[in-house]
Amino acid sequence: MTAIETLPLARKLGAYMALSQAERTLISDLHQSCKPVAAGRRLVDQGQSNHLAYILSAGWACSYKILPNGARQIVDFHIPGDFLGLRHVLLHTSDHTIESITDSEVADVPVKELLEILSRNPRLVTAVLWAASRDEAMVVEHLVNIGRRSAVGRMAHFLLELGSRLKLVGLGDKQGYVCPLTQYHLADALGLTAVHVNRVLRQLRENGLLTFRHGVVTFDDYHALSTMADFDPTYLDQAGTTSIVTMRNRCPAQ
Amino acid sequence: MTAIETLPLARKLGAYMALSQAERTLISDLHQSCKPVAAGRRLVDQGQSNHLAYILSAGWACSYKILPNGARQIVDFHIPGDFLGLRHVLLHTSDHTIESITDSEVADVPVKELLEILSRNPRLVTAVLWAASRDEAMVVEHLVNIGRRSAVGRMAHFLLELGSRLKLVGLGDKQGYVCPLTQYHLADALGLTAVHVNRVLRQLRENGLLTFRHGVVTFDDYHALSTMADFDPTYLDQAGTTSIVTMRNRCPAQ
Repeated sequence: MTAIETLPLARKLGAYMALSQAERTLISDLHQSCKPVAAGRRLVDQGQSNHLAYILSAGWACSYKILPNGARQIVDFHIPGDFLGLRHVLLHTSDHTIESITDSEVADVPVKELLEILSRNPRLVTAVLWAASRDEAMVVEHLVNIGRRSAVGRMAHFLLELGSRLKLVGLGDKQGYVCPLTQYHLADALGLTAVHVNRVLRQLRENGLLTFRHGVVTFDDYHALSTMADFDPTYLDQAGTTSIVTMRNRCPAQ
Repeated sequence: MTAIETLPLARKLGAYMALSQAERTLISDLHQSCKPVAAGRRLVDQGQSNHLAYILSAGWACSYKILPNGARQIVDFHIPGDFLGLRHVLLHTSDHTIESITDSEVADVPVKELLEILSRNPRLVTAVLWAASRDEAMVVEHLVNIGRRSAVGRMAHFLLELGSRLKLVGLGDKQGYVCPLTQYHLADALGLTAVHVNRVLRQLRENGLLTFRHGVVTFDDYHALSTMADFDPTYLDQAGTTSIVTMRNRCPAQ
């Protein structure tokens, strides 16, 4: 297995369409500036203009908005293989902040370079737009989650979604996944208080559906949990996902 | 004033970048199949695949998801100049339903034709991606609205956003706008009950901020309303909006 094949972005886009060796090389080229980023570093600031886009190749990050009253709404979490701030490069200012949650590895992607690489391969344009469309479908689902699901339903739906996304890049399966999120992250993503998050997680555990403990989410009964949460992963559009293998999710060797 | 210049899509993209006559002609070409659509018609069905994208050139529509328990979450309302279902053409199935609210005019846009027209003008690609990015920024803002704002704050923010969007296509100003939405639309968009919507609208009226009556939203005190709702329209990225003139928002003459 070569380094290129271990890139989460290649794995993710590969779920959308079979990638040629040339396309894999282009994806690898996008990672040339890959560098470590410490936990808690802001990559994009709300209100900032003219910033770069990024590819997250290892670690977790989140996008959020801070309201004038100090309340925080987390819009999405980002996992290896995700673009960060891709859409902001078109708007004149970023509409939210992106911050690393864990120690991570991130590649800068100057827009000009991205467009140049994509112009060499129109098929890859479609794959990148697919990834962007999927990101938007997730935000829509988060809106539905907060607007119309019970606290326990939205928690279950959210952790199932993360599980499916992680599965796509080889970092989880139907048993569960390693998850660095705190109760505060979950509260700010789901429109709950931290106390409420604890209560909801206890309820899921006591009902034999899911356990989130010591940084690991375990699906105790995946089927029953999916049914309870009305989780239909169609919007993630990853039906063709290949089987899970353990992969190194690192930058390619420099 | 030519028919092309009255197209809401041309007006909207023109807020992002100055359009050449050739670009205006390309935008007009996208409207060739423009036809009337009655109120309440579903243009895209949740779960449907291989559908078209559309341009709404007159009237209002909405995107929504229906949950298995029957609850409806409206994701966004669409006004003249909006693309409908643009992102769905990349995902294998639509993740929500799009339905006309009023009698409308809609142009079918086969993806192949859209890509062909865009390939003739890369600058227009950027403008279309800008419109798509702006749509996503609005969904993010709706998430923040439901997750972190009070019922009265989210109603005010939402009606102010609609006002800014309508202003961009010449259908509203800081005095207000014609609005065909019912209390049920507002309830399903804001995660409230219809009774709650009535109470919130009464409160806004009694506080001298906003009146929504007989299909017209009137900003009684735009500045105070914006302050109360923490409305910062930066995410709409339309700072360069030209002054408002009354425009016919019709399909070009066939």
